[in-house]
Amino acid sequence: MSTTSDTFFSSRWVERPAQVRELAGGLPRGFRAAGAACGIKPSGAADLGLLVCDAEDAVSAARFTRSGVLAAPVVVTRERCDVTRLRAVVANAGNANAATGVDGIEAATATQAAASRLLGLPPDAIGLGSTGVIGVQLPVDRIVTGLEQLAGALRADGDADFAEAIRTTDRSVKKCSLLVTLPSGEVRISIQAKGAGMIQPNHATMLCFVQTDAVMDAETADLLLSVTVKRGFDRITVDGQLSTNDTVILIASGASGVRIEAESEDELLLGEALDAALRQLALMMVADGEGADRVGRVVVTGGDDRQVEAAARAVANSSLVKTALNGGDPNWGRIAQAVGGALLDSAPLPLDIAIEGIQVCAAGAALRYDERALNEAVKRAEVEYLVALPGEGSETEVFFSDLGHGYVTVNAEYTT
Amino acid sequence: MSTTSDTFFSSRWVERPAQVRELAGGLPRGFRAAGAACGIKPSGAADLGLLVCDAEDAVSAARFTRSGVLAAPVVVTRERCDVTRLRAVVANAGNANAATGVDGIEAATATQAAASRLLGLPPDAIGLGSTGVIGVQLPVDRIVTGLEQLAGALRADGDADFAEAIRTTDRSVKKCSLLVTLPSGEVRISIQAKGAGMIQPNHATMLCFVQTDAVMDAETADLLLSVTVKRGFDRITVDGQLSTNDTVILIASGASGVRIEAESEDELLLGEALDAALRQLALMMVADGEGADRVGRVVVTGGDDRQVEAAARAVANSSLVKTALNGGDPNWGRIAQAVGGALLDSAPLPLDIAIEGIQVCAAGAALRYDERALNEAVKRAEVEYLVALPGEGSETEVFFSDLGHGYVTVNAEYTT
Repeated sequence: MSTTSDTFFSSRWVERPAQVRELAGGLPRGFRAAGAACGIKPSGAADLGLLVCDAEDAVSAARFTRSGVLAAPVVVTRERCDVTRLRAVVANAGNANAATGVDGIEAATATQAAASRLLGLPPDAIGLGSTGVIGVQLPVDRIVTGLEQLAGALRADGDADFAEAIRTTDRSVKKCSLLVTLPSGEVRISIQAKGAGMIQPNHATMLCFVQTDAVMDAETADLLLSVTVKRGFDRITVDGQLSTNDTVILIASGASGVRIEAESEDELLLGEALDAALRQLALMMVADGEGADRVGRVVVTGGDDRQVEAAARAVANSSLVKTALNGGDPNWGRIAQAVGGALLDSAPLPLDIAIEGIQVCAAGAALRYDERALNEAVKRAEVEYLVALPGEGSETEVFFSDLGHGYVTVNAEYTT
Repeated sequence: MSTTSDTFFSSRWVERPAQVRELAGGLPRGFRAAGAACGIKPSGAADLGLLVCDAEDAVSAARFTRSGVLAAPVVVTRERCDVTRLRAVVANAGNANAATGVDGIEAATATQAAASRLLGLPPDAIGLGSTGVIGVQLPVDRIVTGLEQLAGALRADGDADFAEAIRTTDRSVKKCSLLVTLPSGEVRISIQAKGAGMIQPNHATMLCFVQTDAVMDAETADLLLSVTVKRGFDRITVDGQLSTNDTVILIASGASGVRIEAESEDELLLGEALDAALRQLALMMVADGEGADRVGRVVVTGGDDRQVEAAARAVANSSLVKTALNGGDPNWGRIAQAVGGALLDSAPLPLDIAIEGIQVCAAGAALRYDERALNEAVKRAEVEYLVALPGEGSETEVFFSDLGHGYVTVNAEYTT
C-alpha cells in the first residue's frame, strides 16, 4: 500500500473526515487501470484510458447528464449496459463523440466490442466516457489499436495514467486514493475525474470514475453515488454550461471483504468519505475552471427551495459577478442585481448581503463598512458571499469560477 | 428642420420602413432638452440630462425592469408618477441609485422636487432614470445645482447633449431623429437610449426616451410602446444580466396636430416606424456590448413557445458560444450543447443547425459542409445561427454580443 500523503483535501470548504486517510496513489484491491496516447488529441498527449475490475461479483452505479443532446457514449452506457454490473470503463479525451448520429453510436459500440474481446467481458459490462470536441467522428481504429496496448499494460497503480488520459483543458490531474477506516474494517476508494469547462452538472456530472473494494449491494452503490453527487458536482459551475457527456461511474469490487450493510454505521462513514472526496474534486474543477484564478462560494438562505436555487445560480453564473471576482473588485451591487434578475416581480426584496463576513447591504440598502478590509478579502483565492432572502425557509450553496482573460483565451481560440 | 441623413438603420436585420426618413437630429415639436456634467462621474464627463415637453395635454407611457431589486428612480417613477401624464424626464449616468434604501428614495424625490420647482410642473409629471454603479448614494446637491443650469439651457436640438449625458460604458451615443409620413400627415420621432452592459431586458429595457409630436391617447401610447419594446429590447442580451434600472418612457406632445386613432392606418405605420427604430437601437446596444466585436442572431424554430425561448436564450447567453463568436470559431457543437442544456431530459433531440445558411447538423448529427465558406462566414461582424427543434410550433430570435477580452477588461476593472 502506498504511503500516506496529505494534499488532496485542500479547500477550506471541505474537511477530511476523521475516518479517512489520504494515500499517495493506487487503486483499491480488485482494480487495474492504464492510460496512453492513441492519437485522438492532435497534441499527441495521453487520450485513452482503460479501467477494469477483476471481481466477478462487482456491483456498480452511474449518473449521466440530463442534457437534451446526449453524446453517444452516454446513450450506449445508459441504454445498452447493465449499469449495476459494470466491470470496466473505456474513457477518451480529445473527442466527445456527441452530435455524431448513427456513426457515433456505431463508434461507441465498436469501442465496447473491442474492449469486450480483449478483456473477456460481456459488452454490456463495459461503460464508456468521452470528452472533447463536439460534432467530429471518433477515430475508432486508433481507439481499438490503443485498447490492445492498454489491455497489456493494466496495473494496480495505473490510476495516475488513467487520470492523465482523460484531461482536456484541465490544468491539473484530478484524482485521489483514500483509506477509510470503518467499524467493520478498512476499505479503499480511488477516484479519477476531469472537468474545467462546460461545467454546470445537473443531477449528474463530468467524467468521474470511482472505485472501492468495499462489498455492497447495487442499491447501496446507487444510493451512495446519488447522494454524494448531489452535494458535490451538482453544486458547482464554471461557465453555466451543461455538458452533453457528463458521466460518473462507481464500481465496487468487494475485494476487501468488508461488507457495507444498508443503513449501517459503515454506510454512513463510507458515505461521509465519498461525500468529502467528491466535494473536494468538484472544488478542484471549479478552481481549475478554464482560465480561472479565484473560486467563489455563494450561500443563499431564506425564501423557498426554488428561490434560493435560482438566486444562487444567478449569482454564480453572472458574468458581472464573475468578472468582479476575477478583478478582486468588491462591487457587491452586481450580486444584488443578479439576485433581483433571478426573482422577477418580487420587489421590494429586502436583501442582506455579506462578503467574507463583512455585511455590505441590509434590508436592500447599502451599509457603511470597512472598505479596506473588504478590498483585501476579495483579493484572496477563495471568496465567500452570503445572501439572505426574506424568510427562513431554505438554504443552498453554489461554488463557481471567476471569469477572466484566461477563459476568453482558452475558449475563443479552442477550435474544432 | 434638420437635413436628411442615412446612417441610423445600419443593421442588416432592420429595414427602414418606406414611410420613415432619417433626420440629422433634433426633437419633435413641443420638446426641449439639455445635458451637461454635474459632477457625478469622476471623469467629469456629461452625466445629467433634462427633457421637457411643453404641451399641457401630452400623454405618455412607460415600461420598467421586472427585477426584484428595483432602483429608487424606478420605484418613484412607477409608483409616485402618473405614467400616462409625464411631462419631463431627469436622467443621470454614473450612479444607479439602486440598493440605496430610504436615502435613495429621498434622493429621487428630491430630484423630482427640484425639477418640479424649476419647470413649474407637478412632481408626479417628472419621470426619473438613473444608470451607473449600484449601492452608492446619489449626490443630490450636485444634481439640484446641475438641474438649475440645465433648466436654462433647454433647446429644441438638445437631444444630442441629453443622449451624451446618459452614457456609461457605451462606446457610442445611441439616438435618432425620424420623420414619419402618415396618411394623416407628417410626425416626428426622436429617441435617446443607452446600454452596453447588464443587458438582458425582460419586458422592459434600458434607459430609452422616446418623443413624438403625434397626437394620441394614453392607451395608444401604451400599446405602441408595449408592442415595440417586446420586439426590440426584449430580444437582446449582452451578458444575460437584467438591470435594476431599465426604463423606457415615451412622451407624445401632440404638437404636430396629426392624430393617431386607435386601429388606424396611421397607428400601424407609426408603429412600424417605432418598431424599426427600437429594434435598431436594441441592435446598437448589442453591437456596443461591453468589449464586444461581433453581433450574433439566433433564430430558433419548432417546439413550443417555452422551448424556443429557453433554447434561444441559452445559446445567446452561453459563454462558450459567445467566446466562439468572438474568436470567429465555427465550433457549432457549442450551440448543440447549449440547446441540450436548456431542454433537460428531452433526448434524443434531432436538431438541425445552420450558420449563415450553411447547414452543419441535421437530425442531431454532424454533416459534411464547406469548411472554408463557414470559416469565412463566422469572421464577419454579424453572424446568424438557425436552430430547428422538432415540430413546427413556434419561432423566436435573440440578438447577442460576443464575449471577448474587452468584456473582461471593462468588467474586471470597473470598480465601485
